Amino acid sequence: MAAHRPAPELITRGWLNTDSDLSLTDFRGKVVMIEAFQMLCPGCVSHGLPQAQKVHQTFSRDDVAVIGLHTVFEHHAAQGSKEALEAFLHEYRVPFPVALDAWDETGKIPLTMRAYQMRGTPTLLLIDRQGNLRKQVFGGVDDLALGAEIMAVLRDKPAPRAQSTAARTQSGCTDEGCAAPNL
Amino acid sequence: MAAHRPAPELITRGWLNTDSDLSLTDFRGKVVMIEAFQMLCPGCVSHGLPQAQKVHQTFSRDDVAVIGLHTVFEHHAAQGSKEALEAFLHEYRVPFPVALDAWDETGKIPLTMRAYQMRGTPTLLLIDRQGNLRKQVFGGVDDLALGAEIMAVLRDKPAPRAQSTAARTQSGCTDEGCAAPNL
Amino acid sequence: MAAHRPAPELITRGWLNTDSDLSLTDFRGKVVMIEAFQMLCPGCVSHGLPQAQKVHQTFSRDDVAVIGLHTVFEHHAAQGSKEALEAFLHEYRVPFPVALDAWDETGKIPLTMRAYQMRGTPTLLLIDRQGNLRKQVFGGVDDLALGAEIMAVLRDKPAPRAQSTAARTQSGCTDEGCAAPNL
Amino acid sequence: MAAHRPAPELITRGWLNTDSDLSLTDFRGKVVMIEAFQMLCPGCVSHGLPQAQKVHQTFSRDDVAVIGLHTVFEHHAAQGSKEALEAFLHEYRVPFPVALDAWDETGKIPLTMRAYQMRGTPTLLLIDRQGNLRKQVFGGVDDLALGAEIMAVLRDKPAPRAQSTAARTQSGCTDEGCAAPNL
Repeated sequence: MAAHRPAPELITRGWLNTDSDLSLTDFRGKVVMIEAFQMLCPGCVSHGLPQAQKVHQTFSRDDVAVIGLHTVFEHHAAQGSKEALEAFLHEYRVPFPVALDAWDETGKIPLTMRAYQMRGTPTLLLIDRQGNLRKQVFGGVDDLALGAEIMAVLRDKPAPRAQSTAARTQSGCTDEGCAAPNL
Repeated sequence: MAAHRPAPELITRGWLNTDSDLSLTDFRGKVVMIEAFQMLCPGCVSHGLPQAQKVHQTFSRDDVAVIGLHTVFEHHAAQGSKEALEAFLHEYRVPFPVALDAWDETGKIPLTMRAYQMRGTPTLLLIDRQGNLRKQVFGGVDDLALGAEIMAVLRDKPAPRAQSTAARTQSGCTDEGCAAPNL
Repeated sequence: MAAHRPAPELITRGWLNTDSDLSLTDFRGKVVMIEAFQMLCPGCVSHGLPQAQKVHQTFSRDDVAVIGLHTVFEHHAAQGSKEALEAFLHEYRVPFPVALDAWDETGKIPLTMRAYQMRGTPTLLLIDRQGNLRKQVFGGVDDLALGAEIMAVLRDKPAPRAQSTAARTQSGCTDEGCAAPNL
Repeated sequence: MAAHRPAPELITRGWLNTDSDLSLTDFRGKVVMIEAFQMLCPGCVSHGLPQAQKVHQTFSRDDVAVIGLHTVFEHHAAQGSKEALEAFLHEYRVPFPVALDAWDETGKIPLTMRAYQMRGTPTLLLIDRQGNLRKQVFGGVDDLALGAEIMAVLRDKPAPRAQSTAARTQSGCTDEGCAAPNL
């Protein structure tokens, strides 16, 4: 069995569409799909979020939890406020919980985005029932392939949780062509 | 010949994508298409603005001018600032001039939107070479019909400019089902 | 004024969706849009014919007549019979008259297709109120541009009918990349 | 574990896109997706066959086999011949093997279609590695749900093959609203 790495915990500065703040451990036992997006990212609006809503409608809530993650790394004045995101989620009728990725004083890339070394938005994360990160894709994913992928993770046998390693938690994204600046 | 009413002048609090502020009189001699939108209006983002960009690309700039009009009547905190709109226009690559519709102290519906008695967004306006308002549609318009409509106005014989009347400039929208509140 | 060439008459071996055989002269005074297609041509099925149906629905029947022209130049056994075309028109709910382009003994390219020197299917023809060919396009045409084009021809001032010339009626298509073989 | 019924064998009058005739037993050990279609069925052409091609491209050929089944139950003169189907498969670039469903002298509904009691076209069949019929859907299926469904069948534990029962093999379709006539 391949060793899977545990998904880094979400580091947030607030949540919308939920009564109380959430943590990945609240979803242990379910597959979790996280859609990392920015409200002014055209690909997120036209493809990523509609796909996340379709996953939310297609799978049983007992099996699959869908979470949005607002990873603002540009246009902070325009899309950085909770009010702006709240208006966006209302108008686009996003029904699932959405976390606001947190910043520290050092830079513009939010902390969860750094922990996952995301290259930009939209990024789709798939986390298994044991809390391991099983898939991370930057950009578009086809519906047919995604449906198969989610079901493959759902049908996985339970496995012991992978051990965290130091390498994984380093911040920063060094890929060439990375859409997120200043990492 | 039907009497056409002159298009009310734009009342703005600024412009983007242009070096200097514009006025409808700057476009006299051309057909003007105005796309009234809000950056957080899903129908504007998925249909209205892409269609306006297609008009911008299809017709000669000497014949047809395309203008955006940001008529914010809700979620003012999220989409009311010039910075927010600027980020939006950048990300969605809107190439034509965009006016920010002005507010007064009395209410939430911006002034140009009131002057045209718009029912909501997206609203498409078509103004002929003489400055008369020839078409105003709230909601979706089919590409084939719009192409025909624009050409019909383009091929119109020049006519004397219509006289303005008091009735036309009254503010407020009283239609049932109007998408704009508090008119 | 540019001299327009008269549209060659349709040479047919039958009609469907009409009580009696038709001729271009039956439509004099109207703009005529002809959609040349083959029932097994994917681009015709997905784009050309749906667009022709939209034109049929959008414009007044007093102004614009839409005609299909079945120009079979390949797969004659599969799509050459009147029964095959009849089944196709029924299943795809094509509402306008459709002519079956005629063959002679010399080759596989049907006669009207030759007279217009069409390069393949779909080909869109636009004929003005006086019977002159105003536009001929092989492949896809955008709805917005087509709407404008049809209206431009509709709004044209009546002009004397152009004189037929010998050059126009020669058969054969010599363009490189021509989709129709053996021309 | 639910008892699954064995998928009835295909009864064919020929095959295309394959060197030799095939049988379901040739695919034992793989999941088989069968797309039952008619070449003049608009929903098959616009949705069913493109989806089958996407499945063909997305999954490993070692895991999933895609087969077309031409179940002609109307317009026999137009779409009943092998030549017509061959031209269609060529033009639409269908890459997987396609079986021609067989007829007997008693009626118009082909024999495999009867054995499966299909209601019309398109019908999608999903058969597991042991040869049991796991899903049968008439009409459209969403890509996301289909991807999940295929993967669920793929990840199934091997199970003993179900016993055939008399009820299942009776011919005819008695559902209200059945698209196939004369069953």
